[in-house]
Amino acid sequence: MPFVRIFLRAGTTPEYRKALGDGVHRALVEAIAIPPDDRFQVISEHAAADLIYDLQYLGVQRSDRIVFVQITMSQGRRPQQKRRLFKRMAEILEESPGLARQDLLVSVLETSWENWSFGNGEAQYMDT
Amino acid sequence: MPFVRIFLRAGTTPEYRKALGDGVHRALVEAIAIPPDDRFQVISEHAAADLIYDLQYLGVQRSDRIVFVQITMSQGRRPQQKRRLFKRMAEILEESPGLARQDLLVSVLETSWENWSFGNGEAQYMDT
Amino acid sequence: MPFVRIFLRAGTTPEYRKALGDGVHRALVEAIAIPPDDRFQVISEHAAADLIYDLQYLGVQRSDRIVFVQITMSQGRRPQQKRRLFKRMAEILEESPGLARQDLLVSVLETSWENWSFGNGEAQYMDT
Repeated sequence: MPFVRIFLRAGTTPEYRKALGDGVHRALVEAIAIPPDDRFQVISEHAAADLIYDLQYLGVQRSDRIVFVQITMSQGRRPQQKRRLFKRMAEILEESPGLARQDLLVSVLETSWENWSFGNGEAQYMDT
Repeated sequence: MPFVRIFLRAGTTPEYRKALGDGVHRALVEAIAIPPDDRFQVISEHAAADLIYDLQYLGVQRSDRIVFVQITMSQGRRPQQKRRLFKRMAEILEESPGLARQDLLVSVLETSWENWSFGNGEAQYMDT
Repeated sequence: MPFVRIFLRAGTTPEYRKALGDGVHRALVEAIAIPPDDRFQVISEHAAADLIYDLQYLGVQRSDRIVFVQITMSQGRRPQQKRRLFKRMAEILEESPGLARQDLLVSVLETSWENWSFGNGEAQYMDT
């Protein structure tokens, strides 16, 4: 159910991006109990001119390796769960693929449970 | 008013993608009465490593031809309208361009009516 | 805190896209008091077949130079602030890089203040 978008600077290897996708998903599983097989992600690389970030907003020193993660998920997680998600994601991605904690930016969009179809034209979460 | 994002695996023809865009829009028109000329879409193709999906979450068997559709639209549709939208979209896309029903994933983001400008710097839906 | 996506037709220069990004951000700063250093944007170009828009929905005459801006920001702006944002953005982009007012389409997604991490695995807006 989370639909995850990952944006980063062009020039990384598929292995690097796979580790990013794996790590973001593992954080969702560990921190807020997303089912392990509930994984849908799109990763895109962008030229330097097209991926713009402030070097120190809120006192965080960022670099060209910055990664923006935008997660669309259903409503209902408590603030403390979101806090845990951000923390766990930074820890996991620091381990692999070695992303500095300063270079992880996350935003979450919440939508209704009824707003998803996972195939077959069905609204799976509306019926269960 | 819907702003539609379509994500799919690289390697399709412009004609295939046009049929996808046409079908998604026709489903919006038929199922939830979006005006026929209220059409704004961005389609993007992604390498295999960058478009990640689970092969069988919720028992749906997916393939490399998977298409993610993310629709941003204004609030107010009833659950049954959304259910109809998902069903109609799967039917139409199966007909053309021949997308398997298992390979259509849809999510909907709802926003306020006041949150749109369709040109001229105006907030058209705020004023009418 | 706003996370800004900008979509346009392929074929522009980095300078043109920089002016777009600069102008969108300046409008956020001037119209709704976003901090000048709170800037995070991803710009992407798309082939003609993949960027689809209606030529005259709501009576606005659009061209191939159309730009879609999607802003994700925290909740709480009043309708009149959003109106001012759309108006200011059209004015600024008309000046530089010379975008016709008809060719600016904006949508806003609002999310909770707790839904952001700006680095270090922290939920900065939750704690202040």
